[in-house]
Amino acid sequence: MKTKENIKTLVIKKPLKLDCGKTINNFPLAYETYGSLNKSKDNAILVFHALTGDQFVTGINPVTKKDGWWSYAVGPNKSIDTNKYFVICANVIGGCMGSFGPSHKNPDTNKIYGTDFPVITINDMVNAQVNLLDHFEIKKLFSVVGGSMGGMQVLQFISNYPDKASTVVPIACTSSHSAQNIAFNELGRQAIASDHNWSDGKYLSNNTLPDKGLSVARMAAHITYLSKKGLQEKFGRKLQERDALKFGFDADFQIESYLRYQGSVFVDRFDANSYLYITRAMDYFDLVKQFDGNLSNAFKKTKAKFFVISFTSDWLYPTQENKDIVIALNAIGADVGFVEIKSDKGHDSFLLDVPDFLKTLKNFLDKSYLER
Amino acid sequence: MKTKENIKTLVIKKPLKLDCGKTINNFPLAYETYGSLNKSKDNAILVFHALTGDQFVTGINPVTKKDGWWSYAVGPNKSIDTNKYFVICANVIGGCMGSFGPSHKNPDTNKIYGTDFPVITINDMVNAQVNLLDHFEIKKLFSVVGGSMGGMQVLQFISNYPDKASTVVPIACTSSHSAQNIAFNELGRQAIASDHNWSDGKYLSNNTLPDKGLSVARMAAHITYLSKKGLQEKFGRKLQERDALKFGFDADFQIESYLRYQGSVFVDRFDANSYLYITRAMDYFDLVKQFDGNLSNAFKKTKAKFFVISFTSDWLYPTQENKDIVIALNAIGADVGFVEIKSDKGHDSFLLDVPDFLKTLKNFLDKSYLER
Repeated sequence: MKTKENIKTLVIKKPLKLDCGKTINNFPLAYETYGSLNKSKDNAILVFHALTGDQFVTGINPVTKKDGWWSYAVGPNKSIDTNKYFVICANVIGGCMGSFGPSHKNPDTNKIYGTDFPVITINDMVNAQVNLLDHFEIKKLFSVVGGSMGGMQVLQFISNYPDKASTVVPIACTSSHSAQNIAFNELGRQAIASDHNWSDGKYLSNNTLPDKGLSVARMAAHITYLSKKGLQEKFGRKLQERDALKFGFDADFQIESYLRYQGSVFVDRFDANSYLYITRAMDYFDLVKQFDGNLSNAFKKTKAKFFVISFTSDWLYPTQENKDIVIALNAIGADVGFVEIKSDKGHDSFLLDVPDFLKTLKNFLDKSYLER
Repeated sequence: MKTKENIKTLVIKKPLKLDCGKTINNFPLAYETYGSLNKSKDNAILVFHALTGDQFVTGINPVTKKDGWWSYAVGPNKSIDTNKYFVICANVIGGCMGSFGPSHKNPDTNKIYGTDFPVITINDMVNAQVNLLDHFEIKKLFSVVGGSMGGMQVLQFISNYPDKASTVVPIACTSSHSAQNIAFNELGRQAIASDHNWSDGKYLSNNTLPDKGLSVARMAAHITYLSKKGLQEKFGRKLQERDALKFGFDADFQIESYLRYQGSVFVDRFDANSYLYITRAMDYFDLVKQFDGNLSNAFKKTKAKFFVISFTSDWLYPTQENKDIVIALNAIGADVGFVEIKSDKGHDSFLLDVPDFLKTLKNFLDKSYLER
């Protein structure tokens, strides 16, 4: 993990009762903003990040020195146009980019939390982030937008705060984490827990890092973010800097080198315990169950305009799971648009240069903004 | 790993030149047979096992004390009817159920091979197993049958020995391992190599076992063997022996317990280095490339009758990859049948109680046997 600089932090003084029963207060919420809040304070968009994202949505991330995770979509004249909108994004609680998480010290014991950190939920995440509205004195957001786990936060946010956003854009997500997705997350957690250096989560106190386990977890997740067809087209059976198979266990194929690289760069920017906590939050997400089996009830108090986006080759959060949200909204006559974008880039499509998606998102936001 | 008893072994004296360039001889090939070879010796079926299978196809496996891996399909009056056919199955070389593999001692050094064992290929596997025909004095097999990696061996066998089988049944397989499948195998290998106890493959000499890494590898593979829909129907979000979420990292969901169990029982019966070698052999499999990009040429010397079977929900070896084999066979006017079986059980369908599959396989074999 690199040292954290240039991180804006809001200290949330108000007690927050977590779903696990514990109450936290005076905890840090790290955030970033882009663009300017207008006088009427009606141009703010709260963007929620996905599992391994952070508050640095666009431009150069000051910690990793790489492009922000949504640089294709957010910026001047882009889909989420920072010439027009005031974009806010916070690191989720449980995360590792400055917000309250398992790598922080427990003020009661002065020891790093590790797995003594409370298990948090998507609900807890949005209940922490809603404090940003008070901070910026925003009564109502123009929009809440996010993909993957960001989309789950979008759904939970509008369910909890039906009057606090005019438009709602859940992308490539689900209202209830599937068995297969829980399985892949559990695989990642087991990979981390299997690492000798994880030491039951006490690695920071021990000055060790479970890099190997975290790297395997990332490799597993990364495969699920791409489509079979996309992988075949990009890598196929191409060999890595060699003319023939080497008959060994080095990376013969480009796909092997690529995955190893993805694993190795990830451990430089992410904390293993945060990976455990955030995947747990995703697995616990079940908005359907929160509303006793009727998803429509999650949305019946809001007048917001919804726009749901899925991708053809996303097998992690397939179109049907996104459509289930649309069906629940239609059942209560909500204002909802839906589009399935054709893309071979799998679940990662929402993060990548997929022009149809980027145009569609821009059109929805800009048109809704004019009509507000 | 349990001790090996009741294992029949044929010592292959004839030198076998491996694809890696090394030559092996006087090596053991462990095998099992079911049913009786008839007088004309024309009722033999060579069954090839998949990644984690072994020679104990049906009945109780004498080592694991559990049902053989293909007990649904093989036995008296079953699809592969042992009242009628003489079924032979050998543990692949590189494996860990008695055939020459990385847990054997190198006779030159008297040390356990570990990763000094030569990298083997699907081609090497079938070239070792063809020796069983001489042993049983069988000139021509009635059939070669196998699913998954077993199917790859089927294809390689008939390509190498076009006159040695009358019928050919590749099931749920491919002619060329895809990028996604290489990716999942590499993930498993990295999970094993990340285990502190793996010790660069020298764990048996060190009296340690990389059980945690091997267990994670198995969990990853297991997810790929099942379909998203099948997992959702079987497990969904059902909780494991509890009424509510526990807000911790124990297995809250049944799918988590199930995966952990799959991992834990696997390490009792499988060798981690064998897992590395066999997955490598699968990744290296590219029959298309062996025939310079024209798969039809792999089959042009045989008069055998083919029957290709795929499953609707198999996303590891999807129907299209099985169809590619059919297309190559049709292109040379080969005798080929094809069926896609409807099943929600994913890639594992060929191992499970899928009546349409079991009936279809039986019908093809029995009809072909009558017509021989």
